[in-house]
Amino acid sequence: MQPKNIEIEQKITKNLGKIKHKIFVLSGKGGVGKSTVSANVALSLVQNGYNVGLMDCDIHGPSIPKILGIEDKRPMSTENGIEPVLVSPKLKVMSMGFLLQDRDSPVIWRGPLKMTAIKQFISDFNWGDLDYLIVDLPPGTGDEPLSIAQLIPNSDGAVIVTTPQDVALLSVRKSINFVKQMNTPVIGIVENMSGFTCPHCNKTIDIFKKDGGLKTSKDFNIPFLGKIPLDPKIVESGDSGVSFMNEDSTSDTVKAFEAITERIVKNIEKNDKKEVK
Amino acid sequence: MQPKNIEIEQKITKNLGKIKHKIFVLSGKGGVGKSTVSANVALSLVQNGYNVGLMDCDIHGPSIPKILGIEDKRPMSTENGIEPVLVSPKLKVMSMGFLLQDRDSPVIWRGPLKMTAIKQFISDFNWGDLDYLIVDLPPGTGDEPLSIAQLIPNSDGAVIVTTPQDVALLSVRKSINFVKQMNTPVIGIVENMSGFTCPHCNKTIDIFKKDGGLKTSKDFNIPFLGKIPLDPKIVESGDSGVSFMNEDSTSDTVKAFEAITERIVKNIEKNDKKEVK
Repeated sequence: MQPKNIEIEQKITKNLGKIKHKIFVLSGKGGVGKSTVSANVALSLVQNGYNVGLMDCDIHGPSIPKILGIEDKRPMSTENGIEPVLVSPKLKVMSMGFLLQDRDSPVIWRGPLKMTAIKQFISDFNWGDLDYLIVDLPPGTGDEPLSIAQLIPNSDGAVIVTTPQDVALLSVRKSINFVKQMNTPVIGIVENMSGFTCPHCNKTIDIFKKDGGLKTSKDFNIPFLGKIPLDPKIVESGDSGVSFMNEDSTSDTVKAFEAITERIVKNIEKNDKKEVK
Repeated sequence: MQPKNIEIEQKITKNLGKIKHKIFVLSGKGGVGKSTVSANVALSLVQNGYNVGLMDCDIHGPSIPKILGIEDKRPMSTENGIEPVLVSPKLKVMSMGFLLQDRDSPVIWRGPLKMTAIKQFISDFNWGDLDYLIVDLPPGTGDEPLSIAQLIPNSDGAVIVTTPQDVALLSVRKSINFVKQMNTPVIGIVENMSGFTCPHCNKTIDIFKKDGGLKTSKDFNIPFLGKIPLDPKIVESGDSGVSFMNEDSTSDTVKAFEAITERIVKNIEKNDKKEVK
């Protein structure tokens, strides 16, 4: 017998109640590094001792399993529900990618079916007690990310990822208005692919232009979380599934992710204090 | 009185009947340069003397108006229907971007409403006699691009745009299977952001890795249309709306687009001949 809607809602409320902080990661357009930011912020939170969950809601292009090198893992069914994939003792991951039988198959599901799957990600999985749940939303500002966001009320806010060029910024402005409609705060903007340092001559080239994310954050008076350089090592690490954050602690890119994570935590804790007052 | 469904279908059939070739441009994930390829292939076809239409079906992130520098233009209503925006005597463009009152607003439309808009792009607009209609589909392999593709039967096929790295290729393989479900041929794969030449030391760096698109085309035995380098001039031209194809005919990037367009035309004409036999 299928559980009734009300039972599912109760399970969702119960499971979300055990999670202290919920963060959405979104972008107005795809390909700006939303999943790379989600994964590396999650890893950085784990390094800071937090219990973290990472929910990859990108139904059509789930890349979290590849980025984290867990493509062949599957969530396990137990007596008490389904266990997300355990990347390390403090990092649980769920992704649509785990449910695709054939990696090369596109998911052509109509809206309602997708929402049922995402609802189950929350209701039927044992996330347990988490400090942070990172929700990697589908790209864009359409009804799909909005519906998913509406499943998770009382979130701490949204991190918006962009690249510095105008065409991307056009959609970041849409994202800011979109987050307002989600009734959640903007935690801040991350500017990805920001400057490239030539490995041969060591000079920096702003391939995707410069400072666009910073400028937009000033225009809209929202926090700027930091810049991540365009780094072939991120591409390589995302492809090989070797955790980038554990690779080389002296790299500018790793430091950039650490600083961004620190600012996210700070901004959220600041909001916590405001609520206590 | 609203026109009946059957009237709309008749108008669509009539309008599509005046268009010799219809090409879909798609990508498994966003941010790989799908709209840049659509716009520059359209411009390159115009330079070859063809009458071209460009239909930007990316509802949530329409970037064609910005890329072509026609953000402030609007389609004009006439006695005989609505005129798409005329970029040059041989290039007509329609985009959801023209319909957004505020550039910063996200479009949060549920599925059926989106399809109504796209249907009108075909039924109510005077595309006239065209040699080529380029249809820039929304990114991904979800129900949205599929529904749009189903509105335009008897297309010549689909051009799949990707970047060279594995994470993008994961979704290109999904795209190939997706195109099969669209019941249209794959015209070929374009590998974008393929190699970067440092303007300071002139050395080439494969930031997003190398040859992934070429390799996939061999794996699946489908045509490879060519590589486009990662070129800050494309970023700049896409941002400023100055047509890249008219800028510098000696540039490697312009030559790459010209060669790709030539191969697209050749592949389509080859299929035409097959049908005549």
